[in-house]
Amino acid sequence: MSAPTVLLTGFEPFDGEEVNPAQEVAHELGGERIAGHRVIPLVLPVTFEGISSRLSEAIAATHPTIAVGIGQAGSRARISIERVAINLVDARIADNAGAQPVDAPVIAGAPAAYFSTLPVKAMLAALEAAGVPAELSFSAGSFVCNAVFFATMHLLATRHPPVRGGFIHVPYLPRQAARHPGAPSLDIGTLSKGIGIAIEAALAHAQDLRVAAGTTD
Amino acid sequence: MSAPTVLLTGFEPFDGEEVNPAQEVAHELGGERIAGHRVIPLVLPVTFEGISSRLSEAIAATHPTIAVGIGQAGSRARISIERVAINLVDARIADNAGAQPVDAPVIAGAPAAYFSTLPVKAMLAALEAAGVPAELSFSAGSFVCNAVFFATMHLLATRHPPVRGGFIHVPYLPRQAARHPGAPSLDIGTLSKGIGIAIEAALAHAQDLRVAAGTTD
Amino acid sequence: MSAPTVLLTGFEPFDGEEVNPAQEVAHELGGERIAGHRVIPLVLPVTFEGISSRLSEAIAATHPTIAVGIGQAGSRARISIERVAINLVDARIADNAGAQPVDAPVIAGAPAAYFSTLPVKAMLAALEAAGVPAELSFSAGSFVCNAVFFATMHLLATRHPPVRGGFIHVPYLPRQAARHPGAPSLDIGTLSKGIGIAIEAALAHAQDLRVAAGTTD
Amino acid sequence: MSAPTVLLTGFEPFDGEEVNPAQEVAHELGGERIAGHRVIPLVLPVTFEGISSRLSEAIAATHPTIAVGIGQAGSRARISIERVAINLVDARIADNAGAQPVDAPVIAGAPAAYFSTLPVKAMLAALEAAGVPAELSFSAGSFVCNAVFFATMHLLATRHPPVRGGFIHVPYLPRQAARHPGAPSLDIGTLSKGIGIAIEAALAHAQDLRVAAGTTD
Repeated sequence: MSAPTVLLTGFEPFDGEEVNPAQEVAHELGGERIAGHRVIPLVLPVTFEGISSRLSEAIAATHPTIAVGIGQAGSRARISIERVAINLVDARIADNAGAQPVDAPVIAGAPAAYFSTLPVKAMLAALEAAGVPAELSFSAGSFVCNAVFFATMHLLATRHPPVRGGFIHVPYLPRQAARHPGAPSLDIGTLSKGIGIAIEAALAHAQDLRVAAGTTD
Repeated sequence: MSAPTVLLTGFEPFDGEEVNPAQEVAHELGGERIAGHRVIPLVLPVTFEGISSRLSEAIAATHPTIAVGIGQAGSRARISIERVAINLVDARIADNAGAQPVDAPVIAGAPAAYFSTLPVKAMLAALEAAGVPAELSFSAGSFVCNAVFFATMHLLATRHPPVRGGFIHVPYLPRQAARHPGAPSLDIGTLSKGIGIAIEAALAHAQDLRVAAGTTD
Repeated sequence: MSAPTVLLTGFEPFDGEEVNPAQEVAHELGGERIAGHRVIPLVLPVTFEGISSRLSEAIAATHPTIAVGIGQAGSRARISIERVAINLVDARIADNAGAQPVDAPVIAGAPAAYFSTLPVKAMLAALEAAGVPAELSFSAGSFVCNAVFFATMHLLATRHPPVRGGFIHVPYLPRQAARHPGAPSLDIGTLSKGIGIAIEAALAHAQDLRVAAGTTD
Repeated sequence: MSAPTVLLTGFEPFDGEEVNPAQEVAHELGGERIAGHRVIPLVLPVTFEGISSRLSEAIAATHPTIAVGIGQAGSRARISIERVAINLVDARIADNAGAQPVDAPVIAGAPAAYFSTLPVKAMLAALEAAGVPAELSFSAGSFVCNAVFFATMHLLATRHPPVRGGFIHVPYLPRQAARHPGAPSLDIGTLSKGIGIAIEAALAHAQDLRVAAGTTD
């Protein structure tokens, strides 16, 4: 019998960048074992079109214990654990397919928002204890990151209720920040360590919930 | 005959921190060779008292080609190359010996300011080319960092005119920033790489100057 | 027959302040006529307890065309038009009654979020055209401001569907900012002018909608 | 016998702006009496060429008790009392005559820097007491503002030693900030009140010095 899994989504580069720290983190942690779970990476295109079908296939294929999305937020200085996904697309730049929806829903007819079902404060505490700069955030924006976060939560809520999900924004890598005057950054070592710790904290919580519910395998 | 040297000063931890990135950088680069120069580290106490005598002894003992000071600036996100040192102490916190001078000169009777004599724009360009987040700064503050910068420049100007000097502020390390909500950081790998590149760019420039002046050994 | 109305809620001072710019704005605009509507001010206590009943009474008593909440956000530099209210209370400080709920819903059983039903982009455009510094915001936080915003939207959605509502955060007044190092501010003249313009833009839009729907009185 | 004077310099608009808050402040306070002194406004062009001769003529013509320069700093949120002027021009944009000097001295052969000779901390305390958002600053930049500050201090030091001088940066006006996303601002009322208070505090201090030296008229 195969190990339980974590689905870890990242993104291809966008907005003129040659690299995306979320992709790098997915590559670094892909295949790793965290608390007995195999990390399955999925690098998504930065496009609004096709988000739900890609996520739906990936979740169906991997049966993850938790689904964690990672995305680049160039103005942030710390690992930002998102608390809420909103059903709104309002793109300030075009996505990688040239689409730039304005004031459209991510999924028509879906609720206005979903909260992360990951234990965001336990994740923050674990990062702080490990010396990784982190913070909680109330907005994942209105671009593709938020859309993936929202679509993930909608899929989990409507089709895979036991699976918990969430999203984490990460700063530029130093080599990206070098080209953006004033921008902060975190190196790939700190990012990968931090996302690994966040996943571990999320799994510990998921495990607790299952034990509490008497559903441990 | 021994190799030419670079004097690289850092600082002990202060302001309640357990570590100082400037000390870490001095340790990392101490003993290294950069462009044929041996890096001689000097970790200074964070005290106003005794700055000039410590620097004076170190410069006399090491006969450096350039003297570069490194100091922690917790609110900054990038390697900050300082352009000017001012003859003012105005301490918002006490130094590690409990002294907190207000509106006092660093050195009574000395000029109001000294500009860095390092090639700050060439150093910035080298850092950008290497993908290290950097910036120029017009203020090293009015605490011990600025005082060491000023005292260094005054010593060089009055007693060692051929020796060039400057100062570079560095952000918190990630494990420090983890305890300061919102604070940016850079990891020791990026910092050491960056300071090494900055020194190399400064030495290349110093070399050019000597060639131009016909004073190459 | 009495004029149609705008319900404009503000707040009492909190967090150690002696004044609240939202209260000042409500006082300034209270009783004014904007586009044929009388502005009815309501200054709320900064407490989680009793929000819904106070709002419910006020809406029932005033039958407003639109309900606009104003609140202080000390770290902001501009008039911030909020786009979404979330069903979460996570108070970093105690409210004025000493309550400090953590990770609780604003209204148990209510949806995760409501979007503002005011024309936020038309309001932003009107403010820009009038030379008032403004911005859109994706987070009203998780304190009493967000709770009032959420409770307003829930009341309107469930009991007064034709009434549109929203929330606007405002910076400190200059005399408050004077005591908070580094804090930005806007003066009461700019704030009152700005909120008046935002209300006018919202009413113009509401009027358009009614005309489009053939429901003009 | 005519009243003693304060020379208050402002600037014409630059960098694409239609207004300059420093010019507005000079207009507002020009002709006013502050602590028995008549405020004489001088609006300078934003050009490096001709600074010293314009200032020299104005100082010779007005025999001021103090000379205070005001300039726009669009990224600042508060009235910023400058502490030091540096002998460096490094223009990131062209001045209003199209000149953009890089790494040039303001005045060749002059010292590296001058400290403000105004009582900056007394001025800050007076502004705080009056509820005006203010701060001290260690850098007036390297554009025309710093050049005027430096040239003023050099003129006073070399030709008018009893006259005290300094410089104050002010934020955008709200109508300017409206066009700069995210920018903070202060209204002309707060600015004029604040600069008036700062001048009054500076004059009280100058008066104290004269009394102490037995030179009161």
